[in-house]
Amino acid sequence: MSAYKAFDIKKYPAGTAVDLGSHIFSEEEIIEFAKRFDPLDFHTDKKSAKESVFKGLITSGPHPFNHFYRNGWIPVFGKSVICGLEVSNWRFTKPIYAGKTVTCKVIINKIRLNYEKHHATINWLFDIRNEKGEMAQSLDMMVMHFM
Amino acid sequence: MSAYKAFDIKKYPAGTAVDLGSHIFSEEEIIEFAKRFDPLDFHTDKKSAKESVFKGLITSGPHPFNHFYRNGWIPVFGKSVICGLEVSNWRFTKPIYAGKTVTCKVIINKIRLNYEKHHATINWLFDIRNEKGEMAQSLDMMVMHFM
Repeated sequence: MSAYKAFDIKKYPAGTAVDLGSHIFSEEEIIEFAKRFDPLDFHTDKKSAKESVFKGLITSGPHPFNHFYRNGWIPVFGKSVICGLEVSNWRFTKPIYAGKTVTCKVIINKIRLNYEKHHATINWLFDIRNEKGEMAQSLDMMVMHFM
Repeated sequence: MSAYKAFDIKKYPAGTAVDLGSHIFSEEEIIEFAKRFDPLDFHTDKKSAKESVFKGLITSGPHPFNHFYRNGWIPVFGKSVICGLEVSNWRFTKPIYAGKTVTCKVIINKIRLNYEKHHATINWLFDIRNEKGEMAQSLDMMVMHFM
């Protein structure tokens, strides 16, 4: 279980954009996630969602990021993680509705190397877009990796 | 389900600190959360955790905040939420170990009123401390509320 794997800086130098795929969030999935993590009425109840400013069911803020982090990012980069340091500028720019295609890429924004300790501190910029290609959510994640 | 309730600015003016209680994260709870949300080996496997830089099982970064947000903040303030706007400066300052008492308070850092629209944009500062009273995690959350 604990086979760490160094971050591959030759394959992923600073500036690289990695496609984390696309996903359509179903109503059931949105409600299930929100009940567990973010039980606000307009994420867990279709009638409340209709009456909200959004006029329909939208994902909880953390849901899209978590989906792509867990299913796209961790399988590729998870084995090189030493620890998470910070999440910042996580902007919920546009609502993400049930049944629409959402895409995500992550950009390696900055890499700071510590040669002595064989560490790299990496700034990852997540870029999540709605079905029209508009920015729906973005965030900066700073993580320390083995290298 | 959709009974919105205005944010009570008389009861909670800017500068107010609200105690969101304390919690001891069990090993089972840490592993269950991480499997669902953040499946890195050192959060989901005790042997990997022992061999990690932390030398023991620690919560996933989002776990403590999510616990206090869901169980402390939402029951008091959730009915006044219009939408989340941003999360920033979420710093994972110290690891949070299984079996230790963790406390959380949230400070109402800034309130910007929109009288015309009956909205308030509120900056909430979460302050999460370990059993020694040391800052373990903090974050700024910006939310739009009915008022």
